[in-house]
Amino acid sequence: MTIPLSELDIINVILKGKIGRLGCIDNDEPYVVPINYLLDGRSILSHSLPGKKIYAMRANPRVCLQVDQIHDNYRWRSAIAFGRFVEIERPAERRAVIAKLLSRFPQLTPVESAIVHDAAAPDSVVFRIEVERLTGVEEE
Amino acid sequence: MTIPLSELDIINVILKGKIGRLGCIDNDEPYVVPINYLLDGRSILSHSLPGKKIYAMRANPRVCLQVDQIHDNYRWRSAIAFGRFVEIERPAERRAVIAKLLSRFPQLTPVESAIVHDAAAPDSVVFRIEVERLTGVEEE
Repeated sequence: MTIPLSELDIINVILKGKIGRLGCIDNDEPYVVPINYLLDGRSILSHSLPGKKIYAMRANPRVCLQVDQIHDNYRWRSAIAFGRFVEIERPAERRAVIAKLLSRFPQLTPVESAIVHDAAAPDSVVFRIEVERLTGVEEE
Repeated sequence: MTIPLSELDIINVILKGKIGRLGCIDNDEPYVVPINYLLDGRSILSHSLPGKKIYAMRANPRVCLQVDQIHDNYRWRSAIAFGRFVEIERPAERRAVIAKLLSRFPQLTPVESAIVHDAAAPDSVVFRIEVERLTGVEEE
């Protein structure tokens, strides 16, 4: 039986998680991919090389991030943050976001490392999800 | 760096998984929830009590199921099956699907047990996703 989570519990699930499933809409079809992310205030920060999810979110910025803590098939919590994709393009802001992501995910890739040291590194797309609404349930 | 998975690898990821993230569209907004499922031929079988995801899929049957094998943040595989939600309403077919699900997820709930023994048990929604397209990538 599932029970709604309190907002505090929802925020804790999202704060503690490192991998979430990003849901977006691609040509009127749902699309879900795992991403590493960081919750920072009311923003979820992430980055990606250009690809299907980035093109989909640019075309339709309504997205959600689902994060769960699964103990087993019958005891789990799942939280969802609904919001809006916003691409971060200013070099200083890109560097600041990448630095935060790297402090949580320390294994640098050449592209990310380049962004921290040189704002001109072009390939990686840095973005935030502006969180508008949270929901969550648990089964226990 | 992500690399496309072969169709065989994609099917293996989905076959071995027990928890997937179902993506659907609810009022023009993406919605993602974890579900237990079973891949059976070209169908993904599952069930749920009525609720937001069921109402969303009845209104818009385009769905996807994302399944991953995450070793760590930098080594993972993710597969997606895209398809169409089909509700299973014939009592004999409902019983057959629930029996398959129970053989993979043996912990009965009262509702599911009732369906196996009495087709009239009304509450649980039994459904399949008719898989139309598969994609998958790995990062290694």
